Amino acid sequence: MSAAPPADAAENTGHAAHGHGSPGYVDVKDALLKRLRRAEGQVRGIARMVEDDVYCIDILTQVSAATKALETVALALLDDHLSHCVAEATAEGGPVAEEKIREASAAIARLVRS
Amino acid sequence: MSAAPPADAAENTGHAAHGHGSPGYVDVKDALLKRLRRAEGQVRGIARMVEDDVYCIDILTQVSAATKALETVALALLDDHLSHCVAEATAEGGPVAEEKIREASAAIARLVRS
Amino acid sequence: MSAAPPADAAENTGHAAHGHGSPGYVDVKDALLKRLRRAEGQVRGIARMVEDDVYCIDILTQVSAATKALETVALALLDDHLSHCVAEATAEGGPVAEEKIREASAAIARLVRS
Amino acid sequence: MSAAPPADAAENTGHAAHGHGSPGYVDVKDALLKRLRRAEGQVRGIARMVEDDVYCIDILTQVSAATKALETVALALLDDHLSHCVAEATAEGGPVAEEKIREASAAIARLVRS
Repeated sequence: MSAAPPADAAENTGHAAHGHGSPGYVDVKDALLKRLRRAEGQVRGIARMVEDDVYCIDILTQVSAATKALETVALALLDDHLSHCVAEATAEGGPVAEEKIREASAAIARLVRS
Repeated sequence: MSAAPPADAAENTGHAAHGHGSPGYVDVKDALLKRLRRAEGQVRGIARMVEDDVYCIDILTQVSAATKALETVALALLDDHLSHCVAEATAEGGPVAEEKIREASAAIARLVRS
Repeated sequence: MSAAPPADAAENTGHAAHGHGSPGYVDVKDALLKRLRRAEGQVRGIARMVEDDVYCIDILTQVSAATKALETVALALLDDHLSHCVAEATAEGGPVAEEKIREASAAIARLVRS
Repeated sequence: MSAAPPADAAENTGHAAHGHGSPGYVDVKDALLKRLRRAEGQVRGIARMVEDDVYCIDILTQVSAATKALETVALALLDDHLSHCVAEATAEGGPVAEEKIREASAAIARLVRS
């Protein structure tokens, strides 16, 4: 789980050229990938529980845990998005800033309602 | 429900001096107040249903409706907050902008988890 | 919180004649009504905050609290419903029991998605 | 979706000896496993998007979709649980029935709050 190779960080620096990079980005990205891998493992574990006819309530506990893990990922992504993309756009102002805010609000609405 | 007196709009313009006002603010405020009054009526209606021993499932339908109404209010407030307070702060940058983003992210997390 | 007057209990016993009464019901009903009145007050308080141009984030905190209060009401109603209506129907079995389960599942889905 | 191979049904009948089997269970199980595999693929896809520095908002859309998929799994499990385990226990009545209801209510609360 902590086997993120140094090569990954290097690769990420490369991506920074795409315009999404930022000082704190690498750390956030590694943390997100770790969480996502854990969530993927949780979902796989739930499938195994269903296959093994594990008691429903115990499976439901795991589904709630996986849902929470995804929510945490979403909130981290959103915070990063507000701190970087939205903050940069609003610093410039104009229609791009408005568009970014609209987009962020729509994403928040989807999260709150999901 | 539509009894919002014209004086209200005037009063609101006064508040603009406090730093929360903005061109589109009056409309948002009226819409929010209408929604909140409807939500208040829904909650009062739910209490009446409980008093009258209405069938549980019918009460639950109303509780879901009231919860959704509050969520809509929250999303409208958040959108307004990002468009005004956060956008203004990030346009200036610095620690105030960071604080505003942190605050907004925490509010979003509370909403997603509630 | 335990100040439920005896008169109230007597009135509720009258409602039991409507067919929804059950040994534990009186206590649940009083607790639900108290919660609903508090939730109604919270929603009214939120409207006042909007009128007074209170800072968005502080309003959002109250909206999250009111939403949670309604969720607690919904979960109490659902628990009561499963313990009484559904349990009685399934004890008898047949199509009514199936209908009650379907209804309860639909109500749970609305709650989870709201 | 109805392509459940006979071999699978036979295997499941074996599991029925564990006490979780029931007439409708095979179909539900296959549908659940399909959904869970799709959800697992969605989570893996999200990790890939993060690795590739895909735009935050697009990743968030996928996170919402995966969360909804897990919610659907949870609601199907819960419906199955109420229809079988809870219905059987309440048909017998007594403390086991009460325990099953309590357990189901707690699971519903975790879902609603997650």
